[in-house]
Amino acid sequence: MCANRIYAPIHDIKWSDAEKLVARNAFKNAYGRECKAIQAKLKKMIATASAPSNLWEIHDYLSEQRNQTDEKYDYRYSVLIFVFARLLSEGWLQKNELKGIGEEKMKQIRMEASV
Amino acid sequence: MCANRIYAPIHDIKWSDAEKLVARNAFKNAYGRECKAIQAKLKKMIATASAPSNLWEIHDYLSEQRNQTDEKYDYRYSVLIFVFARLLSEGWLQKNELKGIGEEKMKQIRMEASV
Repeated sequence: MCANRIYAPIHDIKWSDAEKLVARNAFKNAYGRECKAIQAKLKKMIATASAPSNLWEIHDYLSEQRNQTDEKYDYRYSVLIFVFARLLSEGWLQKNELKGIGEEKMKQIRMEASV
Repeated sequence: MCANRIYAPIHDIKWSDAEKLVARNAFKNAYGRECKAIQAKLKKMIATASAPSNLWEIHDYLSEQRNQTDEKYDYRYSVLIFVFARLLSEGWLQKNELKGIGEEKMKQIRMEASV
């Protein structure tokens, strides 16, 4: 037990239906944004591909992105605080998109994100 | 032993330096051609991608093509008769690109390719 903990343990935090709606939309928007960025990079890579080996570099890039996004976009309420913190710090999400999520959760998200 | 065999066992076939040069070029050209076709398909897929799931369909497509080409383009002289036969039958190679390869080998390639 951490004597300095001022928030409820993250696993114990309950999400209301209204918060879940906000969270679901924010999550979806961030995911769509990151996928758009991957798509844009992919277009550039394919446009400049000249040698067969470039094709497999594109494949390597997509494999890496798929692994990263699969790991990152984990929509479980028990880890959502960390997920949103990461998305904020990486710029895939803006704080105002989380409007409607309770202040205690937002404090924890900001603290984890250090933004 | 097959009583009807009229050719030397494929594993015993020797390739002259001149034949190796023809084979190497034919192999390289077929590979380049197939990779160009994959690249063209990839461009179409990326141009019409709209949902995030389309990205991973592209990744699945590339994974499949990479596995298939890795398996198909096997430049070992012990299997090259079969490789060329397959490339001819799939249209990645034309018979005239094998000009310079000995008649016994060409018979075996044609027989395997059934072209």
